Amino acid sequence: MAADNIKVVLVHTTHPGNIGGVARAMKNMGLSRLVLVEPREYPAPEARWRAASAADVLDAAEVVSSVEEAVAGAQFIVGTSARERRIPWPLQDARRCGERIHEHAGRGEEIAILFGREDRGLLNNELELCNLHCHIPSHESYPSLNLAMAVQILSYEIRMAGLSGTQAQGEDADWDTPFARAEDMARFYEHLEQTLVDIEFLDPKAPRQLMRRLKRLYNRVRLDEMELNILRGILSETQKRLPGDKN
Amino acid sequence: MAADNIKVVLVHTTHPGNIGGVARAMKNMGLSRLVLVEPREYPAPEARWRAASAADVLDAAEVVSSVEEAVAGAQFIVGTSARERRIPWPLQDARRCGERIHEHAGRGEEIAILFGREDRGLLNNELELCNLHCHIPSHESYPSLNLAMAVQILSYEIRMAGLSGTQAQGEDADWDTPFARAEDMARFYEHLEQTLVDIEFLDPKAPRQLMRRLKRLYNRVRLDEMELNILRGILSETQKRLPGDKN
Repeated sequence: MAADNIKVVLVHTTHPGNIGGVARAMKNMGLSRLVLVEPREYPAPEARWRAASAADVLDAAEVVSSVEEAVAGAQFIVGTSARERRIPWPLQDARRCGERIHEHAGRGEEIAILFGREDRGLLNNELELCNLHCHIPSHESYPSLNLAMAVQILSYEIRMAGLSGTQAQGEDADWDTPFARAEDMARFYEHLEQTLVDIEFLDPKAPRQLMRRLKRLYNRVRLDEMELNILRGILSETQKRLPGDKN
Repeated sequence: MAADNIKVVLVHTTHPGNIGGVARAMKNMGLSRLVLVEPREYPAPEARWRAASAADVLDAAEVVSSVEEAVAGAQFIVGTSARERRIPWPLQDARRCGERIHEHAGRGEEIAILFGREDRGLLNNELELCNLHCHIPSHESYPSLNLAMAVQILSYEIRMAGLSGTQAQGEDADWDTPFARAEDMARFYEHLEQTLVDIEFLDPKAPRQLMRRLKRLYNRVRLDEMELNILRGILSETQKRLPGDKN
C-alpha cells in the first residue's frame, strides 16, 4: 500500500495530547506523514507520552504556518467535517473516503487529509480547499468525536481498503488441526449413541430427539481431528469405568 | 438498533484517562453500558475530562470485581485479542465482529465485549470465556492500539453494521431455544472437568491443554439451553454409573 504519499494534516490543534494520540493512531494503521498547522503547544511531553511507540512519527512531523502550505503539492484533498454546510459539498462517509484515498494513493497521487480544531473543526475557507468532505456517521446524542479518534477511524478505513484485496478470512482460517471427515464423524456418533445407551441416558425404545440434537451441535461446530480424538477418548474411558464393562 | 443489550467491559484498566476516552467513544457511536473490572484508579478527574460530554456514560458505569461477574447473563461474548494464541480460537476482524454483534443484539441477546489491560490485553482464562475473538488489523510496525481507540473502532463497526440496513442473517438466526448464559457455561465446565477426573480421563496433575480445547469447542458452537441440559444430564448419568459413585 502506498502510504508514503498520504499526509495527515492537523489544523490549529489545541491539546498536545491529541497530537500524540494521532501519531499513534496513524502508525497503528501504517501511516507516517504528519503535518501540524500552527499547533498551540508543541513539542510537549503530553504529546510524546500519548504517542507511546510512535515517537518516530512525531519526530518526523512537519510544522507549518498555514493550511495552504500544508496542502502544497496535494492532488487529492479530503476534509473531515461534522457540521452541515450551507453549500453542499461532495460528501462521503469514512468507509467510502477510505476507499477513495486508497485508490488515489495507489495511483501515486499526493493525498492530504485535513482535520480541524477540537472545538470548531475546519473553517469554511479550509473546507473549500477539499475535493471531498468526509463524514463519520456518529450518533445524534453526541456526534462530536475526539480528534485522535477521528484520525483513528479514517486511518483504519484506509488500511481496510488496502487489505480488502486479500480475500475475506473465515473465523477458522489458520486453524491448528485439520477438520474431521464425515466418516470419522459417523463413527463418533455411533460411539456416542452406544455410550449413552450404556450409561442409560438414552433409551433405545424412546430415543426422542436426543441424537438429532447432539448431531446438530457437533456438526454446527465442525470438530477438528484432535477434538474428535478427545471426545472419543472420553467415551472409551466412560465405557471402561462402567460396572460390568460391556466392551 | 438494540444497543441497550451491549456491554463494553474494561478489564483491569490502568489509566483513568482511557476510561474517559472509552466512555466518549461509546457514546459517539450510540453505546451506553460500561462495566469496569477492578480499574486501578477510578473515579478520577482524568476520566471525567477525557469523557467530555459522555459523563453520563461514566456515571452509569458499573464497577465489579471479576470478569465472571461482568459477563454474568451474557449470551454472546467477544474478546479483543492482539496476540497469537497457542490454541487458535474463532477469530474475525473488527468489521465482521461488528456485524455479528449487531445481528445478535438485534435478536435481543445479551452481549459482552471484553477489552483487556493496556499492557497485556486479556489473559488466557479471560479469552476462554469468549465465543469469538476480535482482531483489529493494525500494521505490523506498531500493532498495539490504545485501549480507547480499539473501543472506538469496534463501536464504530457495530454502528456501521446497524446503518447498513442490509441485515446479514447469521447462521443461527431463528434458533429454537435461547443460548446459554456465561454463568451456566462456567458451571457446565466445572461439572465436565470433575467428571473427566472421576472417569480418570483427566489427570489433575497433568491436565495438558484438555480443558482449554474443550472450552474452545463448546464456546465456538455456542450451546443453547437445551443442549446444555442434555450435556449436563450425560455428565450426571455418567457419574451415577461409576463404581463407588463419588456424588
